[in-house]
Amino acid sequence: MAEMKAVVKTKREKGAELLTIPIPKPAPNEVLVKVKATSICGTDVHIYNWDGWAEGRIQNVPQTLGHEFSGEVVEVGSLVKRVKVGDFISSETHIPCGHCPQCLTGQMHICNELKILGVDINGCFAEYAVIPEIVCWKNDPSIPFEYASIQEPLGNAVYATLEGGGINGHSVAIFGDGPTGLFATGVARASGASEIFVIGKNKFKLQIAKKMGADHILHTDEVNVYEYIKEKTHGVGTDVVLEMSGAAVAIENAFKVVRRGGRYTAFGIPSRDVTLDYANGIIFKGINLIGITGRKMFQTWIEVRNFLSSKRLDVSPVITHKIPLEDYKKGFDILNSPESECGKIVLLNK
Amino acid sequence: MAEMKAVVKTKREKGAELLTIPIPKPAPNEVLVKVKATSICGTDVHIYNWDGWAEGRIQNVPQTLGHEFSGEVVEVGSLVKRVKVGDFISSETHIPCGHCPQCLTGQMHICNELKILGVDINGCFAEYAVIPEIVCWKNDPSIPFEYASIQEPLGNAVYATLEGGGINGHSVAIFGDGPTGLFATGVARASGASEIFVIGKNKFKLQIAKKMGADHILHTDEVNVYEYIKEKTHGVGTDVVLEMSGAAVAIENAFKVVRRGGRYTAFGIPSRDVTLDYANGIIFKGINLIGITGRKMFQTWIEVRNFLSSKRLDVSPVITHKIPLEDYKKGFDILNSPESECGKIVLLNK
Amino acid sequence: MAEMKAVVKTKREKGAELLTIPIPKPAPNEVLVKVKATSICGTDVHIYNWDGWAEGRIQNVPQTLGHEFSGEVVEVGSLVKRVKVGDFISSETHIPCGHCPQCLTGQMHICNELKILGVDINGCFAEYAVIPEIVCWKNDPSIPFEYASIQEPLGNAVYATLEGGGINGHSVAIFGDGPTGLFATGVARASGASEIFVIGKNKFKLQIAKKMGADHILHTDEVNVYEYIKEKTHGVGTDVVLEMSGAAVAIENAFKVVRRGGRYTAFGIPSRDVTLDYANGIIFKGINLIGITGRKMFQTWIEVRNFLSSKRLDVSPVITHKIPLEDYKKGFDILNSPESECGKIVLLNK
Amino acid sequence: MAEMKAVVKTKREKGAELLTIPIPKPAPNEVLVKVKATSICGTDVHIYNWDGWAEGRIQNVPQTLGHEFSGEVVEVGSLVKRVKVGDFISSETHIPCGHCPQCLTGQMHICNELKILGVDINGCFAEYAVIPEIVCWKNDPSIPFEYASIQEPLGNAVYATLEGGGINGHSVAIFGDGPTGLFATGVARASGASEIFVIGKNKFKLQIAKKMGADHILHTDEVNVYEYIKEKTHGVGTDVVLEMSGAAVAIENAFKVVRRGGRYTAFGIPSRDVTLDYANGIIFKGINLIGITGRKMFQTWIEVRNFLSSKRLDVSPVITHKIPLEDYKKGFDILNSPESECGKIVLLNK
Repeated sequence: MAEMKAVVKTKREKGAELLTIPIPKPAPNEVLVKVKATSICGTDVHIYNWDGWAEGRIQNVPQTLGHEFSGEVVEVGSLVKRVKVGDFISSETHIPCGHCPQCLTGQMHICNELKILGVDINGCFAEYAVIPEIVCWKNDPSIPFEYASIQEPLGNAVYATLEGGGINGHSVAIFGDGPTGLFATGVARASGASEIFVIGKNKFKLQIAKKMGADHILHTDEVNVYEYIKEKTHGVGTDVVLEMSGAAVAIENAFKVVRRGGRYTAFGIPSRDVTLDYANGIIFKGINLIGITGRKMFQTWIEVRNFLSSKRLDVSPVITHKIPLEDYKKGFDILNSPESECGKIVLLNK
Repeated sequence: MAEMKAVVKTKREKGAELLTIPIPKPAPNEVLVKVKATSICGTDVHIYNWDGWAEGRIQNVPQTLGHEFSGEVVEVGSLVKRVKVGDFISSETHIPCGHCPQCLTGQMHICNELKILGVDINGCFAEYAVIPEIVCWKNDPSIPFEYASIQEPLGNAVYATLEGGGINGHSVAIFGDGPTGLFATGVARASGASEIFVIGKNKFKLQIAKKMGADHILHTDEVNVYEYIKEKTHGVGTDVVLEMSGAAVAIENAFKVVRRGGRYTAFGIPSRDVTLDYANGIIFKGINLIGITGRKMFQTWIEVRNFLSSKRLDVSPVITHKIPLEDYKKGFDILNSPESECGKIVLLNK
Repeated sequence: MAEMKAVVKTKREKGAELLTIPIPKPAPNEVLVKVKATSICGTDVHIYNWDGWAEGRIQNVPQTLGHEFSGEVVEVGSLVKRVKVGDFISSETHIPCGHCPQCLTGQMHICNELKILGVDINGCFAEYAVIPEIVCWKNDPSIPFEYASIQEPLGNAVYATLEGGGINGHSVAIFGDGPTGLFATGVARASGASEIFVIGKNKFKLQIAKKMGADHILHTDEVNVYEYIKEKTHGVGTDVVLEMSGAAVAIENAFKVVRRGGRYTAFGIPSRDVTLDYANGIIFKGINLIGITGRKMFQTWIEVRNFLSSKRLDVSPVITHKIPLEDYKKGFDILNSPESECGKIVLLNK
Repeated sequence: MAEMKAVVKTKREKGAELLTIPIPKPAPNEVLVKVKATSICGTDVHIYNWDGWAEGRIQNVPQTLGHEFSGEVVEVGSLVKRVKVGDFISSETHIPCGHCPQCLTGQMHICNELKILGVDINGCFAEYAVIPEIVCWKNDPSIPFEYASIQEPLGNAVYATLEGGGINGHSVAIFGDGPTGLFATGVARASGASEIFVIGKNKFKLQIAKKMGADHILHTDEVNVYEYIKEKTHGVGTDVVLEMSGAAVAIENAFKVVRRGGRYTAFGIPSRDVTLDYANGIIFKGINLIGITGRKMFQTWIEVRNFLSSKRLDVSPVITHKIPLEDYKKGFDILNSPESECGKIVLLNK
């Protein structure tokens, strides 16, 4: 029986092991992918660290980690039609049921019964992975493996930045300097945002934001965010805010910074309930607040592909590390260090 | 000098006086209106009662109360063009500056420098009132005086119910049984909402909701709102929620009741900050949250006029009292009683 | 082998035959439906009459006619998950490929490879029909069989009337008194359109329009359509026009009647190229023109179900004939007579 | 009495004269502007050449030509509030009435009673011009005079390119290589359009399109436009088409090139009625067709200002000529020559 290496969560405690396990077989509606590149998400770090969220969320141990990847199809199930052996694919990582009201109305990304790769089923930190056809996405051949692997988080940024309109020729404040915030900076810049403020807590990451096209980088230890943006926008505030940190203070500032009639996009997930000035922040300002989770299937994927294949968007500044899959522990260590000098970490298979 | 009766806030304490004062003169860009009917808003009650909000908000005392009205133009300023003597008008009560970014982009209702009739300047609980031309609205002659006087709060309901789409053929939960909630019930019904839940705390008002077209009336003392709606919507929730109460528990329920991908409209103003489940209520559901204040000038007014003049919408069940202006104290007493059996109270001039 | 009756196009010439043929077997991704009610569409008439369009369009003869139906599932293929034996269903009649750009972005109704029931494959004018699971739609049990069978054309009306917004509290001119125009009249009325003009050429059908909620019925032989609507709308035109006739003169009038900044919905299919005043009709008016084909899967179906199950919309005036399937020739004869006094004709199985 | 130079249409025949005439006085709601730069529009050429359109459209002769400009306010009328002496302004050239249904609903640009500068009233090809306050637009001081003068046609391009959404990360075909087509190319590029096709008839202008960011320039004499785009888009067509030529063959191709479910923007004004394949081009494709005229007041102006002041958009390749006002004849001669090697021509005052 053919075998492969895989990074597996083997115990309900911190860590993960590199094991040699059987190459999985695709079901009739699945494909088998030879993984070329896979990248580490904050969710993977939660599971690796086995924090409170992971303890409550993860059902299956042992389970292979990871969900962001690109690779080549090497086998297809008997019912698979849209994908062929040899195709260069990535995949949507949120697997929809196909039958709920949202799935029946073009909103599969907010399916009532979502299953997530590497969270609810075996993931892609391995040499091979099985992927349901319904989430397969054929990549443009011109996109390099490592870029193709980060399309899923890039898709978050594209969806969040463009949904609700009004980014072209308008100002935007992006709260959060993690990979999604940095990608969103690039998307906003490539989409004609006229003035981009990025607010963060990590100098290295804010320098990446600069490279991605930020006009202003604001370190929260050094600048009064609200006063700074208020002054630069002549007291009006920004047309759009993208809240991508989930931090309580950032959410508070985001509601203060968005202009009357502006758009507030909620993407960063707070770890607890949030208290906000609902009357002044939402009602009297007449804002439009949009909750963003996942990516639109596959509208967002088309846009991601187009941004990359047309080279309108250069994501290379965000990809700070490319290391072999075997060195996954090094990747998690970097991401766990408080002042980590990193953007996105890609794990490569030989 | 010609004189008139007016209900005037004369002291920074509870109450108001019926005085005889000079009929005001319109400035070059104003008109003088002979008031036919005027209705009492919750804001008027705050000012009458002189609560904490009023103490902090009201600058000018003495000041004539009231902002909702209909009447006949009897004099126009020298620069007035759009309105003529003899016109039957009501008016937008939020007076925009005309120069700020919102005013320059068709969003006058969220002007940076809004002044409100009866709050920032003299109002319309009087025989005559001066109104700036910019907010004048010519009524359809077929609309009765008392209906024309309640178009301003009806406009809140129309704007809140229709903004963001998706009411036709869809389910809606309306939190709040005050006049705006009751009007919104009628608007939703006239607009083809397929299943309407109205949630309130007053049996008399919920019976009005029934007359306005509610399919389900839920008294919060008698029903578990979340469980009830969940069951009736097969576990999905409603497509739209209109939060028109401002109560913390209602807001909490509203976020639980709206379906994934649904619309949450925030209109009711809470008296303090609100704590909410931002992750599950907004992000993972992927909702669209819309803050509503005032009415769109004059898109909403056109819709209000059309609903009334076409008789698609019958607002008569909400107008529970028509009393002479002189009996204003009776009106405030009714509105101040905890179990008041009332909807909207209209004050009439002879 | 079990047999059934079916209305089959047996020759490439006018007519169709009632044959006894084998009950078809569902493929693994299909279901077998016992048809309860099925209704006749204009497309069926084209095929029955074997006009130029049919000659060019229809590939397979013999082929069972018909696409609009309701019925009960009596057998399901091995891969079918969403539908069960005993379900009361209708179906979308446009079968999408599932793989093209539109299918991958929630726009299956404009799939590049659409196949149509009764046009490209065997239809439902029979006792039984096989239906692909992807288009199955579970009906609300409260909807009567005959109403459930006309949801497909009703869906055209719902999609056309609501897409693009602005029907609530606004005026609309509906060109065409065929079933879709009549259904659209009901949908517009149920959705709060404030003033509804229906333009047609058949007095009987215009009387149905009246029953469905038209405020004005305009017979083209008797009224100058443009002048009439212009006067009634104070020279402005209607906010929305729904062009549902495909007639050149109607299209010309529709562009004249829509107001500046209004919505023009194109649904009626002209039999040849159309010459229009593109500069004045489209550009200087700044209109939004929306092409409508089919129904959104399944957003429109949800709305159709909700309108019917909530009884907000009563379609009974449009269903003028219910006759046994065996009397299909009578149905076609009625529809072929120039001054036919009919709306929708439903064929019933015992 | 103070005098100024002005380019005046003095006779109802080809040509215009440079006259010395009195400096006009602003009315109470107008300002007097010292013109710094003014640019020539195709409309000016029609009037200069006195073609059939001009003969039918122009009421007043003598009348000063021109409508695109930038300059400094030197005097304000007594009622003017929003603009001050010393302000650097341009202006919307379509003067709305302020009272019609569109003016009352934020759609002043499609006012029922529009008056156009230099067409209905005296224009700005002069040392001074009077401008109604309602159309004044304060420029960002960082924008050079000559760029500020072309904001009006640039606004056409911004409005046409962005209205209706879907330009970010999507493909677009721009029909027409005149100034608006060239500006639109830049706007599309700055807004993240992933693949831009520009179709034209003038090699010099197509080279400017290249500089503005076109990926493909198609000369209609050399390329089969439909086949070329079809191949490059894998048979799908472009997501967006901007028809900016008004030519019959371009309109025909534009309807063939837009993908199913795509957006077709109509801006170029054909000189006569247009015959089109309404069934296949509009209905079966399910497109959204948007008529564009003028610019949204002042949403578009904000976007134009932001694109320029942020330097996201460089319009310099389009401005091919800067000549003194006195040399206006040279400007018209260049624009009238069939193979003119020009983009936009700006006339400067000393």
